[in-house]
Amino acid sequence: MPALDPGAKRAILDAVAALESESIAALERLVRCPSTLGNEASALDEMARNYEGLGLKSQRVPTVPEKLASHPGFSPPLISYEGRDNVVAVHNPREAKGRSLVLQGHVDVVPEGAADMWVTPPYEPSIRDGRMYGRGAADMKAGDISNVMAFKALQLAGLQPAAQVQFHSVIEEECTGNGALACMVALPKCDAVIIPEPGPNYDAIYTVEVGVVWAWVTVTGRPVHVRDMHAGINSIDAAYRISTLFREYEAEMNRAERIHPSFFGENHPVNINFGTVEGGEWNSSVPTRTRIGMRVGVMMGRTAREVKADIEALVEKARQDERLRGAQIKLEFSGFMADPCIFDQQAPIVQAVRRNFSETAGRELRDYKASGLTDGRFFELYQNTPVACFGPESDSIHGIDESVGLDSFHAITRTIALTMAEWCGVEKA
Amino acid sequence: MPALDPGAKRAILDAVAALESESIAALERLVRCPSTLGNEASALDEMARNYEGLGLKSQRVPTVPEKLASHPGFSPPLISYEGRDNVVAVHNPREAKGRSLVLQGHVDVVPEGAADMWVTPPYEPSIRDGRMYGRGAADMKAGDISNVMAFKALQLAGLQPAAQVQFHSVIEEECTGNGALACMVALPKCDAVIIPEPGPNYDAIYTVEVGVVWAWVTVTGRPVHVRDMHAGINSIDAAYRISTLFREYEAEMNRAERIHPSFFGENHPVNINFGTVEGGEWNSSVPTRTRIGMRVGVMMGRTAREVKADIEALVEKARQDERLRGAQIKLEFSGFMADPCIFDQQAPIVQAVRRNFSETAGRELRDYKASGLTDGRFFELYQNTPVACFGPESDSIHGIDESVGLDSFHAITRTIALTMAEWCGVEKA
Repeated sequence: MPALDPGAKRAILDAVAALESESIAALERLVRCPSTLGNEASALDEMARNYEGLGLKSQRVPTVPEKLASHPGFSPPLISYEGRDNVVAVHNPREAKGRSLVLQGHVDVVPEGAADMWVTPPYEPSIRDGRMYGRGAADMKAGDISNVMAFKALQLAGLQPAAQVQFHSVIEEECTGNGALACMVALPKCDAVIIPEPGPNYDAIYTVEVGVVWAWVTVTGRPVHVRDMHAGINSIDAAYRISTLFREYEAEMNRAERIHPSFFGENHPVNINFGTVEGGEWNSSVPTRTRIGMRVGVMMGRTAREVKADIEALVEKARQDERLRGAQIKLEFSGFMADPCIFDQQAPIVQAVRRNFSETAGRELRDYKASGLTDGRFFELYQNTPVACFGPESDSIHGIDESVGLDSFHAITRTIALTMAEWCGVEKA
Repeated sequence: MPALDPGAKRAILDAVAALESESIAALERLVRCPSTLGNEASALDEMARNYEGLGLKSQRVPTVPEKLASHPGFSPPLISYEGRDNVVAVHNPREAKGRSLVLQGHVDVVPEGAADMWVTPPYEPSIRDGRMYGRGAADMKAGDISNVMAFKALQLAGLQPAAQVQFHSVIEEECTGNGALACMVALPKCDAVIIPEPGPNYDAIYTVEVGVVWAWVTVTGRPVHVRDMHAGINSIDAAYRISTLFREYEAEMNRAERIHPSFFGENHPVNINFGTVEGGEWNSSVPTRTRIGMRVGVMMGRTAREVKADIEALVEKARQDERLRGAQIKLEFSGFMADPCIFDQQAPIVQAVRRNFSETAGRELRDYKASGLTDGRFFELYQNTPVACFGPESDSIHGIDESVGLDSFHAITRTIALTMAEWCGVEKA
C-alpha cells in the first residue's frame, strides 16, 4: 500500500478534528430517527441527505425477496419491504488510480425495550461524560456517521479518493441482513469493505462472528376452564417445557470440544435467547396458544442450515415428549438464517485499519470474537471481498441506556479517513 | 312450601314446551353479542329488551368502585366501568303473598381463544346434534335466557309470581364479580337466589366452590445484546423459574390433609393457571420484561386474603432466589379476590330446585364441587341469602367449541319456572 503523503495525512487528521462538533450533531440527528423494523424511513432519508451533503447523488436500492431468494445468504423476511428502500451513493474519481472501497452501515435499530427504564428517552440523544446515549447511538449510527465524516474530512483537506467509493445504508441488519445483500448484488464488487460496527466496551475489530438462526415455536394446547385444567394442556407450561430442551441443546453446543479454534477462549459463544413470548388471553382460561421467538447461535464450522435441522430435531423430540402429548407444536423460520464468518485478519484492508487506528489512537484495536453477527458475512462469504469490521467502544447495545464513547467515535472516523486515503489513493477534490 | 296447583303446574310445563323455539332464538341472539370484558354493551341491551318483553321496566345499575371498595367481597377492577352498567328489572305482584326471589345471571364471556380452532365461529351460534355451540352459550347465556323464559312461561299460563322477583344481568362474573355485588347492594334483599350457571358435562347443582385470586407477576431482567447475554437476566427465563415456585405451592395445596371435607373426592381442586404471558420485543435482545397473569385457587376453609399472603411470600422467596439475583419482581393484584363458598344444600330453595328438576327431567341434578367460582358467593357469604346455583350440562366452557345441551337447557327453564311458581306463589297475570 502506498504510504500517504505526510502533509495529506496531517490535513486529513486536522479535518477530522475540525469536524468533531459537526459529527456529533449529525449523529444526534440520526439517533433521533426511531428506525426500528419497518420504521427506517426517516433514518434512510437522513443518510440520503448526508450523502447529498458530500456532493454525491443518493440512490435507492429496493430489497426484492423474489430476486434474492435463491441467494445462499438470503433470510426469510419478517415484513414487507415496501417504502423501506436502502440508500446508496457512489463516488467516482476523475481518474481511478487506487483500490475501490465500500463504506457500509445499517440504519435499523432494535426496539428500545422498556423506555421508562432509560435515564433519558431512547430517541432523544443525550451526551453525558463523553458518551452519547440513545438507541442505536453505538449500534451503529456512530459508524454510519463516521463513514460520512471520513469522506468529508478528505474533502475538507482538499482531497477525494482516487477510486470508487460506495456508501451503503441498509435496513434489517438486526433481523435478516437482506438490505445488505440487496445492495451488495445491486452494485459492482469493490476491492474491500469497511463496516464500522461497534465493539464491546473497547474499540475492537471483528475476527470472527457466529451465525444466527431465528426460530418461532408456537404451541397450541388444549384450552378448557381452569376447573377442568387437568383435561387441558396449558400452552404456557408446554412452551416452557420445550424451552428446557433448547437450554439442554445450548449447553451441549458450548462443550469445549464443539468450539471452533476461532472462538477459543470465548466463554459460552453459542447462545440461545428466548427473546419474545406471547400467550393466552385470560387468567382463568387455560391458554390456547403460546409463541416463543428465539435466536439460536451457529458455531463457526457449522452452517445455519445444519442448526435449522438441529432445531427441527429438537421440536420433533418435543412432539414425542410424553408430557406434551396432545399439544400441537408448530415451528417456523423467519428472520436470520445466517452463517458464521471468519474475517481474514491478513487482508491488507484489515492491516491498514489496525495500523491507522493504533498510530492515531495510541492503542490497539482489540480482537473481537463476536457471539453476535454483522452484515460483513455477505461480502466475505459470498463475494470474496475482504471486510474490516471494526468500531467504537460501546455500552449496552440492545439494552437500556445504550451509549457510545465519543472519543472512540472520532478515533474510528480518523481511522476510516486515513485508511480510505491510503487504500483508494487521493486526488485533488 | 305450598304445593303448586296441578293445573297450574301442567299449564306452566306446557308453556315452557311451547316456548322452546323462542327460547332457542333468544339464546342465539344473546350468543351473537361478543360480550367479552369491556364489550358487554350489546348483551346488556339484549337482556334489557328481554326484560321489557316480559312487561317489566329495565333499569341500569352502575358499578361504582368507590362505593364498593370497602365491601369484603369487592375485587380490584381491571378496567373502567363506564358504559357497562348492569341491567336489572323487578316484578312486583298485585298482592305479595309468597317469598321473593332473585333470578341472576352474568352476560360477560371469556375470550374465544384461537377463533380459527372453532368448528363454527364463536359468536355465530350453531346447532348440531341437539347442542348449541358458541362462546357463552353454556357459560351462562343459556341460564340468562332460562331466567327470562321461566317467567314468560308463567305469563303464558296466565299467571305471575305472587312475590317480588328481581332479575339481575351483570358484568364481570368472569374476573371480579363486582357487577353482581353492585346489583346485590343496590336492590332489596330477597328470600332466595337462583343462578343458572352451567354444570360440567351433566346437569348439576353447586354444593361448594373454591375462591380465586388473580395475580400478575412482572419480572424485569437486565437487558443486553445476546452476545453478552450472560451479563443480563432473561426475563422470560426468570418468569419461568418463578412459575416453578408456584407449581410447587400448588402441589402442596392439593395434599390430602389440606383438602376441606366439602371437597373430599375431588381430584386436585386447587388449581393454579398461568393464563397469560407476554414478554420481550426482539429475538436477538435479552427481553427486559415478562408479565405472567395467573389465577390461584383458594381452598374452602381459607380466605382469598390468606392466599394473597401466600402469593406475596412466594414472590418474596423468588426475590431471594440466587438464580434470580438482579431481577426485579413486581407483584400486583387485580381481578378476583374471591373467597370460597359452601351452598347450603338444606336450604328450601335448593330442595325445591332439586325436586322440580328430578320430577320433570326424570334424573337427579348431580352435586358439583366446583373448582371454579360463580357470583353465588356474594349472596351466601355477605347477605345470608340461600342460593340455588345449578344449570345445564355443558362442554368446553372457556375452551374451543363451547356448547350447551338444548334438552338440558329446557329442563333448567322448567325447573326455574316451577320453583318460582312454588316459591313465590302465583296470582293471575
